Amino acid sequence: MALSDIEIARGATKKPIQEIGARLGIPAEQLVPYGHDKAKVSAEFIRSLEGRPDGKLILVTAINPTPAGEGKTTTTVGLVDGLNRIGRKAMVCIREPSLGPCFGVKGGAAGGGYAQVVPMEDINLHFTGDFHAITSAHNLLTAMVDNHIYWGNALDIDVRRITWRRAMDMNDRALRQMIGSLGGVSNGFPRECGFDITVASEVMAILCLASDLADLERRLGDIIIGYRRDKSPVFARDIKADGAMTVLLKDAMQPNLVQTLENNPAFVHGGPFANIAHGCNSVIATRTALKLADYVVTEAGFGADLGAEKFFDIKCRKAGLEPAAAVVVATVRALKMNGGVKKEELGQENVEALTRGCANLGRHVANVRRFGVPVIVAINHFTSDTEAELAAVREYVSRLGADAIVCRHWADGSAGIEALAQRAAELADSGQGAFRPLYPDSLSLFEKVETVASKIYHAAEVTAAKSVRDQLASWEAQGYGHLPVCIAKTQYSFSTDPALRGAPEGHVVHVREVRLSAGAGFVVAITGDIMTMPGLPSSPSAERIFLNDHGFIEGLF
Amino acid sequence: MALSDIEIARGATKKPIQEIGARLGIPAEQLVPYGHDKAKVSAEFIRSLEGRPDGKLILVTAINPTPAGEGKTTTTVGLVDGLNRIGRKAMVCIREPSLGPCFGVKGGAAGGGYAQVVPMEDINLHFTGDFHAITSAHNLLTAMVDNHIYWGNALDIDVRRITWRRAMDMNDRALRQMIGSLGGVSNGFPRECGFDITVASEVMAILCLASDLADLERRLGDIIIGYRRDKSPVFARDIKADGAMTVLLKDAMQPNLVQTLENNPAFVHGGPFANIAHGCNSVIATRTALKLADYVVTEAGFGADLGAEKFFDIKCRKAGLEPAAAVVVATVRALKMNGGVKKEELGQENVEALTRGCANLGRHVANVRRFGVPVIVAINHFTSDTEAELAAVREYVSRLGADAIVCRHWADGSAGIEALAQRAAELADSGQGAFRPLYPDSLSLFEKVETVASKIYHAAEVTAAKSVRDQLASWEAQGYGHLPVCIAKTQYSFSTDPALRGAPEGHVVHVREVRLSAGAGFVVAITGDIMTMPGLPSSPSAERIFLNDHGFIEGLF
Repeated sequence: MALSDIEIARGATKKPIQEIGARLGIPAEQLVPYGHDKAKVSAEFIRSLEGRPDGKLILVTAINPTPAGEGKTTTTVGLVDGLNRIGRKAMVCIREPSLGPCFGVKGGAAGGGYAQVVPMEDINLHFTGDFHAITSAHNLLTAMVDNHIYWGNALDIDVRRITWRRAMDMNDRALRQMIGSLGGVSNGFPRECGFDITVASEVMAILCLASDLADLERRLGDIIIGYRRDKSPVFARDIKADGAMTVLLKDAMQPNLVQTLENNPAFVHGGPFANIAHGCNSVIATRTALKLADYVVTEAGFGADLGAEKFFDIKCRKAGLEPAAAVVVATVRALKMNGGVKKEELGQENVEALTRGCANLGRHVANVRRFGVPVIVAINHFTSDTEAELAAVREYVSRLGADAIVCRHWADGSAGIEALAQRAAELADSGQGAFRPLYPDSLSLFEKVETVASKIYHAAEVTAAKSVRDQLASWEAQGYGHLPVCIAKTQYSFSTDPALRGAPEGHVVHVREVRLSAGAGFVVAITGDIMTMPGLPSSPSAERIFLNDHGFIEGLF
Repeated sequence: MALSDIEIARGATKKPIQEIGARLGIPAEQLVPYGHDKAKVSAEFIRSLEGRPDGKLILVTAINPTPAGEGKTTTTVGLVDGLNRIGRKAMVCIREPSLGPCFGVKGGAAGGGYAQVVPMEDINLHFTGDFHAITSAHNLLTAMVDNHIYWGNALDIDVRRITWRRAMDMNDRALRQMIGSLGGVSNGFPRECGFDITVASEVMAILCLASDLADLERRLGDIIIGYRRDKSPVFARDIKADGAMTVLLKDAMQPNLVQTLENNPAFVHGGPFANIAHGCNSVIATRTALKLADYVVTEAGFGADLGAEKFFDIKCRKAGLEPAAAVVVATVRALKMNGGVKKEELGQENVEALTRGCANLGRHVANVRRFGVPVIVAINHFTSDTEAELAAVREYVSRLGADAIVCRHWADGSAGIEALAQRAAELADSGQGAFRPLYPDSLSLFEKVETVASKIYHAAEVTAAKSVRDQLASWEAQGYGHLPVCIAKTQYSFSTDPALRGAPEGHVVHVREVRLSAGAGFVVAITGDIMTMPGLPSSPSAERIFLNDHGFIEGLF
């Protein structure tokens, strides 16, 4: 019987984290250890890297996710192991998983099979405490807002217009909508409030976009916590919370170093949502990695329509990053689902449906190329894939002028992904990359949404109520017009209808609501229902999680 | 100008934590490092200590606290430095401070002057993440309770009788009383709820009383989350949350090793409130320390009426600890306040008021002796103390048959506390100690409250409504009658009136409410208003906390 992810991870021969750091040229005293297999890189060491040349940045993205699974993180980790296997100095740079969802549906987020980052239990639980620090900083600001109102509200905040909520790293639907400050004079002024899961916090997005602690503090100060009756914004800086929030985040700001199962280095740092935020690991981790390795393989959230677009238009634009190549991950199973096959029938060969579903892959490939980034397709192999199916994908992709390479890293580790590693390195080194964002800063906010919707989603039209358009115009008047947009849309489709698989055309994107993340530096356009606080299922995995007699965690993965 | 606590702490020459561990015989691989100056001791190493003889346990407690300050932690730390100075192998064992209050009123909790544990900024902020883990475990249980109800409430929990709240390590009065699950079907059934600060969580008390991970899981399962309509209890075990909570707490359960300014070892672990909980560091830390050092100096919360009583009657009783000696800390200033002097007039010599105030000290000394523990008094020296005042305290204490020793560790470190160290070691080695709890397990719950009130508080009577007495009787019928009681009372007086200083007699203790902490294993009797979620002051210290240009924290202490 095949070993489970956690069994494989437990069997890993981990090297002391100082050895992993040494391979990147990080002296042991510049690593802040968390246990023997995790460490943060010191701010001092990161500062010392300034002026060094950058390695090549390779993005791993994917087709629209389906219940069949794509294996994006697995491929990111596998590709780094493959690159090291063929003699290249490469490292992983990915997001930290959120604690809350671990207790809902079984499954962690640190790769899988023989392509994982370890220690996977720690990474999926408290890790180095970054998310807890973000939760604390977020809630300190809220406490200070309510406290300010309690003691006289000198800033004249309209309690009906407070937009800053609270945060918890837990799936708890009871916290979505609440009334707080009940119970009389000493508990404050009752008002509607609620919690978002920590990954949805603007503090998370800020930490992931800030270049250093000074920039972090500036951005935290720029957070808008709400508005006065005259609709003028009140900032976290006005509440005087930015300094203490920075103090709470000073360690969380430093990238976390861990290793793959094959002892290659990995930064796992930051983890904003890929719908209401930009969905990539921290800028500081990516920039540091580029100074330490010749190839840095990173990942964007969800499918390329959401994840890669935001990676390019928000993170790369703002941080001045120039990705040299991109890998689009697909599986035969997921392509068949995109071609209309039901989950129960995925085990049967179906070349016709597969070919139909390839339209989804084709559009993602074309979209990534729009950003001036050369593309390669990774077919993450499943044992049920047939030769005819694999050949059909290869042929489809080759007609697009790209390579599709079958990868067996899940089963075989680096030995199963050599070909992809070889081709990805060639592509990254080819000089073909000429990165450019999709739209200029100067476009109006609504035009930015329209550009993404037409060019990436192939929508016919973007609609929005007058109030939404007025809100955008008002932010433009306040000087926020230059910001990029962050579209919150279902990850399951190019359209706003999660059931519409494949490559739909001519659909309408309706912007229901817009939000300004002034500290993070983007405007969120929300289409459809976006959940910022998940709930638990009827039989949450938490019920089956326990420590066994050997002190190992059971049921988490 | 005198250096501030943080300036002294920053100037410390810290040794690598592995060196500190080595002095205790802990191999480096059994220390789980958190940075270079903090580490957790592995569960494996702790198990290996079984069968070793125990060192001597010395309790540091104090008179009733006043705004003048007593310096209990400072004396605990100083005494260990003093013991090591005179050639004894001694270590500190104290509580972790709570994060929330750091942002309210300036001031940390890691000692002061030249008697501190370091790194004090870390210890006062996220430290090794224990409190965050406790917060997560607490809130996971609550999320699972609401989720259980959402999906059909098979356990038939009465939503009006849910006693388990949520936790956050933040001073936020807006969270005290709320209505959650608003917003319609998908958010659950609206109900009253609220948050306590993490130190008030029963999970905190449980972690501090559990002997190992198996005992921790059992106690977590024993938590009562609420009641059915027929008033039968529903346990965390019924919700199936105990396993996942244990997984979240597995690292938090391990003691944290740090060092004093003089490089002596210190465990800083766990931190329950001293009113609604027992107010001492973890049992696992104390027990481990006793295996590693010849003298372990520990501390109890607030004054001896609350802190020492609970240390003896809850912690020592349950963990089988036998304290060998106790130090009662007093200051001339605080004794003068107990004698009626106002804070503004503390700078002036006032032997008469001081002598009056000594009655408070005298009663604490007598109380501690009731438990069979020999006592010594430490006068924590302030520069404003006069010779006449110091002589008066010494004389008063000598009439009690004890020594009062002036200590200057705050100003001089171990050199200022040699005499106390010498005398404390003699007392601990004297064999005079014959520890016994105040009351037997077999007494009824109400009689236990009466015993503490009459013997420790010198109250004339304990009153309670019939409903409170009925509740106690009902718990006795359910098999909880053998538990010790944990009295939540103001820390400022022997009575329930915080303004009543000195040594009041014949007062009435009214038990307003009782709560069962079935997992922790005690019954809380609440007298007066006990705040389990503090608020922030009108100008919270958070407004003045920031990272300076050198990356140092300003404004926290």
